[in-house]
Amino acid sequence: MQSSLSPFFNAKGVAILGASTNPKKLSHGILENLLTFGYKGGVYPVNPKADFILGQKAYASLADVPDPVELAVVVLPVTIIMETMREIGERGIKNVVIITGGFKELGPEGAAIEKSVKDLAASYGMRVVGPNCVGTMDIRTGLNSTFIKGMPPAGPIAFISQSGAICGGVIDLIINSKIGFSHIASLGNMMDVTETDMLEYFAQDDNVRVIAMYTEGIPDGQRFISLAREVSKTKPIVFLKAGKNDAGAKAVSSHTGSLAGSYAAYQSALKQTGVIEVSTINELFNLAWALGSQPLPRGKCVAMTTNAGGAAALAADSLDFNGFELAKISPAIQARLREKLNPSAQVSNPVDMLGSVSPEDYLWSLSNLDNDEGVDVLLPILVPQALVDTLGVAKAWVEIGKKTEKTLLTCLMGERSTKESEQILNSNRVPVYTFPDQAGPVLKGMWEYKKVLEREEFEAITTQPACELALETAKAAIGDRKVIGEYESRLLLDAYGIPNVSGGLARSADEAVALAEEIGYPVVLKIVAEGILHKSDAGGIVLNLHSSEELRVAYDSLIERIKMNETSAKIVGVMIEKMADKGVEVIVGMRRDVTFGPLMMFGMGGTMVELVKDIQFRVAPLSNEDIKSMVAETMAGKLLNGYRGAPISDFDALYDVIGQLSRLSLEHPEIQEIEINPLIVYPEGQGVVAIDSRMILS
Amino acid sequence: MQSSLSPFFNAKGVAILGASTNPKKLSHGILENLLTFGYKGGVYPVNPKADFILGQKAYASLADVPDPVELAVVVLPVTIIMETMREIGERGIKNVVIITGGFKELGPEGAAIEKSVKDLAASYGMRVVGPNCVGTMDIRTGLNSTFIKGMPPAGPIAFISQSGAICGGVIDLIINSKIGFSHIASLGNMMDVTETDMLEYFAQDDNVRVIAMYTEGIPDGQRFISLAREVSKTKPIVFLKAGKNDAGAKAVSSHTGSLAGSYAAYQSALKQTGVIEVSTINELFNLAWALGSQPLPRGKCVAMTTNAGGAAALAADSLDFNGFELAKISPAIQARLREKLNPSAQVSNPVDMLGSVSPEDYLWSLSNLDNDEGVDVLLPILVPQALVDTLGVAKAWVEIGKKTEKTLLTCLMGERSTKESEQILNSNRVPVYTFPDQAGPVLKGMWEYKKVLEREEFEAITTQPACELALETAKAAIGDRKVIGEYESRLLLDAYGIPNVSGGLARSADEAVALAEEIGYPVVLKIVAEGILHKSDAGGIVLNLHSSEELRVAYDSLIERIKMNETSAKIVGVMIEKMADKGVEVIVGMRRDVTFGPLMMFGMGGTMVELVKDIQFRVAPLSNEDIKSMVAETMAGKLLNGYRGAPISDFDALYDVIGQLSRLSLEHPEIQEIEINPLIVYPEGQGVVAIDSRMILS
Repeated sequence: MQSSLSPFFNAKGVAILGASTNPKKLSHGILENLLTFGYKGGVYPVNPKADFILGQKAYASLADVPDPVELAVVVLPVTIIMETMREIGERGIKNVVIITGGFKELGPEGAAIEKSVKDLAASYGMRVVGPNCVGTMDIRTGLNSTFIKGMPPAGPIAFISQSGAICGGVIDLIINSKIGFSHIASLGNMMDVTETDMLEYFAQDDNVRVIAMYTEGIPDGQRFISLAREVSKTKPIVFLKAGKNDAGAKAVSSHTGSLAGSYAAYQSALKQTGVIEVSTINELFNLAWALGSQPLPRGKCVAMTTNAGGAAALAADSLDFNGFELAKISPAIQARLREKLNPSAQVSNPVDMLGSVSPEDYLWSLSNLDNDEGVDVLLPILVPQALVDTLGVAKAWVEIGKKTEKTLLTCLMGERSTKESEQILNSNRVPVYTFPDQAGPVLKGMWEYKKVLEREEFEAITTQPACELALETAKAAIGDRKVIGEYESRLLLDAYGIPNVSGGLARSADEAVALAEEIGYPVVLKIVAEGILHKSDAGGIVLNLHSSEELRVAYDSLIERIKMNETSAKIVGVMIEKMADKGVEVIVGMRRDVTFGPLMMFGMGGTMVELVKDIQFRVAPLSNEDIKSMVAETMAGKLLNGYRGAPISDFDALYDVIGQLSRLSLEHPEIQEIEINPLIVYPEGQGVVAIDSRMILS
Repeated sequence: MQSSLSPFFNAKGVAILGASTNPKKLSHGILENLLTFGYKGGVYPVNPKADFILGQKAYASLADVPDPVELAVVVLPVTIIMETMREIGERGIKNVVIITGGFKELGPEGAAIEKSVKDLAASYGMRVVGPNCVGTMDIRTGLNSTFIKGMPPAGPIAFISQSGAICGGVIDLIINSKIGFSHIASLGNMMDVTETDMLEYFAQDDNVRVIAMYTEGIPDGQRFISLAREVSKTKPIVFLKAGKNDAGAKAVSSHTGSLAGSYAAYQSALKQTGVIEVSTINELFNLAWALGSQPLPRGKCVAMTTNAGGAAALAADSLDFNGFELAKISPAIQARLREKLNPSAQVSNPVDMLGSVSPEDYLWSLSNLDNDEGVDVLLPILVPQALVDTLGVAKAWVEIGKKTEKTLLTCLMGERSTKESEQILNSNRVPVYTFPDQAGPVLKGMWEYKKVLEREEFEAITTQPACELALETAKAAIGDRKVIGEYESRLLLDAYGIPNVSGGLARSADEAVALAEEIGYPVVLKIVAEGILHKSDAGGIVLNLHSSEELRVAYDSLIERIKMNETSAKIVGVMIEKMADKGVEVIVGMRRDVTFGPLMMFGMGGTMVELVKDIQFRVAPLSNEDIKSMVAETMAGKLLNGYRGAPISDFDALYDVIGQLSRLSLEHPEIQEIEINPLIVYPEGQGVVAIDSRMILS
């Protein structure tokens, strides 16, 4: 595999700039790590004041370091970062890890330095990890440029984390449990190398079977989307987002200066690209480890075998909650189980072998459950007890793991008596959990990934171009206003072929009557005035007018009412619109996300919007599948789909509106928000119509 | 404290029936435990074949055991249980722990034996814990009748668990972390002593500050409710329910033969009685420990101080998700923080002191945050790093814990480097978590308990008695039918003063017209026929008839249609009802729960019921607060409360219907289900009216 990032993991020679003789310094720890884990390349401490550090010859300057040297690790102060980078560039080294902090994360001054370093690095064609990071590890080559104590055993998981502390914490958490990793990459401020770059690199490395990401904010949302969509076809990506809500986002932004996109946009982007989202650090590794060590569940039927009914009950709750179920054990297998188990044992699922269980009991029950065609997943659970050989049981589970082709997850509910057993299980790629309720979320994640593998190739929807003439008209009407109401919004929707309810703008009662005669009674009046955003609240809407007489009276009293109540509003006129027939009211809209771009939205519309909060999102560009699933996941989608005997709605017309609106959003980056509410959806073949709309421009 | 359960925890003398000389037997383990943890009473192994066991003189029979002996622990086979119990009874011992299994959990035969033992015990006035349990522990007296290895340190938590294995697992999980317990009680099949009995006992023991319960099924729901309501006023009860859903309930029932009530009923009963529900074993102890060791949060503003921004971001997400927020640190305190911290540190919340933090940094930041009036909760977080003195940091946190009156929760995100620090923190009653996201759910639970302490005394609502005459009429109409439709249901509702829409039963078009003239047009027709449950689906409803002509035509064609389409239905007649004015449609009903009794329900009614699933439950008898909160927690409640400028609805009339319906349910245990849908609620002062109703009787 050739990549500009390769030397971060398998450089021929590494120089440490600022390597200290003082064991209390981080740079000393880095040198030690480079010498400890079997890295085969040359390791060159650079320190003008030292001769030898940790037995390695030290060099006065980088120029003195012998060839080959492909990676520089910088632990020097930010004050001399520019000359250091220049020195590295001149020495012809193309890969740099900047451990040093004091850049963007400290504010504008630091950001300015970071920008200069970035430009300098670019001029030398260098790739930079950091600054403000703890470096990277390749478990197999032993190239470890971090100061973190210890390395996990070699295994399937590549871990990408913006936060170095999280890398350190994760290693502290998992190192005793023998979960296996391929790489660890801490990226810090991501001046150059981003999570997306790292994702691309790990996608191509055969040692990586699963990619786990801890992320505070992705800088390159649309690129992440296209790449993640490709990678997830062959390797699962498990993703933990920090800064989901206001409090978290504030914590993130004061931390690495990331500008966090909305969490709704992240959720949508991840779902659309087949990335599996988790909600805690613990789940991140539980799921990544299961995906990296076990086959995907072929079905949703789980067989449990246990010495503790209570623990099995907790697991069963968790399975059900996560969409899995208890397998029905066949009578033949139940009879087989009965042959050797305790006569008081329960042989239907969960198989309860009672407290004082033996390793042989587990071997017997699991071998037989493995033979049951109705079982997709094996989940043995043990609660350690005085007379139970916990280690023996763990070994029995490992033995089953070697034989079975089914998914095997296990639970040892303990801490005092389970450490060695846990290590044996993980070392043999049998995931083991401390709590019986942890298996459910893992299986759910594995199932999600199975669905990702089964789904169709992404193909962006085909949409129709805007009518150029109509677009010009709309732009002229909008001028340089930022908040635009229904009148101008209609013009833009028109240009993109989105059907508006018939109507037009009248500036007098006479014009209003003329319009109404043209479109037909009954009609609706809506005030058009700058400074009035919520027409309804301002009393600016009159419904259901059946004649020119009614219309004239309503027109005049509407204008009078607005003049009286909304003294600061600048009245433009009144929209005269056809009173629309009843149908299902939905909301369709867009909010531009800072990370991912146009975030399309759909949900139940009309007056219930704020009550039921029935909204789904998808990031544009959209596939047909994106649009369909966005609609199907809402209550509105169920209402449209022949709810309680009503006719099926015109889904095609609705999908078309969403598609055209996504094109409008992609082609007009100045539009920050669009809302069509309500869009009325009629029965199949009868189309849709936008009743009201508004937009916000930047 | 005097209680018939006291001897389980502080008996003067314990006899072990079936104490074995074989160290591989459970009974040997029990004897060892009784001798190991400082229990001061006499310990008497009973075994006719041994002279001494573990240095204790063994007795040939219980009759030989010297006085005083107040507790018998039975580890003998189920085959000789009756004579053993008789022997205990004759010896005058009033408290028995039956460890032995092989009873109800094995099916009808075992259940019969259990029943005999229960009757025998009752005839001697004995209290029995078990059978099929692992016994009990009192950490302070050292009376430990279990065979579980080790005892946790003395502390505030009493743990009640039906499942013995869960007790063993929990001790294995927490014993190394130094979380403190007062008692552990495993109850097994609960032949006699139930969770409710144990709850009552622990409520009165001053050593108990918090009660943690793992429950599969409570046998005495209504008693639990009254007791838990009292206990929760002075001691928090934390509750984990196993068998929440079908899979879990199945696992539970095959386990201890518990008949599980519906989970919705548990959730309601717990909420109503001030019991705090958790969803995992881990949360059970995290929350119990915090409640037992820390003051309740006085407000919702949390200050974090950390060496890892990423960990703080995860914690911030969890806080927000659980209803807490980041405190705004005052400028004065920020300036103070700045004085001694790393110049690159972030001094707004979360206070980020960067990787290489010192114990002094934590002392400084926490002391200052403690002085900030805007801070209610302190949450220091440390991710262990190469150069950080983790133990020193833990000691700094303990020091703060001794000074502060605020809630102090802590996080050490690690495993390899944190064990000793964790022990020091817990030994000093400072809760510590492994993951930063664990503090949120704990704070939420503490806040819930704070609200429990603040709420009003339970007072059952006053309701009006049924009209006896109307009740007789209704009963006569119902006869011995089990599924009753609107016609008879109306009569029962009438009897309890619940307003039905005006109307009556017509058996001919003439009768229909006469009725319609009486109640006034427009009217609605609804078929009344045995065998038709869903009138609407069967085409059995005609709306909005304005004249006798329309009515006659509709009546005849309705009868004809039903005769043709529903050949098996037995037509009784047609309900003629006033076409009701529009209002908010809600559903009010009752489902009788096997554990708790009448489970009242309320939610959005009409055709949207199945779509929005907006339902809340409360167990009757109800307080005013129960009714108000049940309504307020639904979307329907918001719709009634002046949603988008609509008039406020007649809440009093609605509350009255719910109250009367609860009385109807309490007075008629034969009614299994009631549903009024829709009940139309009109604006304040204009009442409510039941449009349709049905019931199911047992």
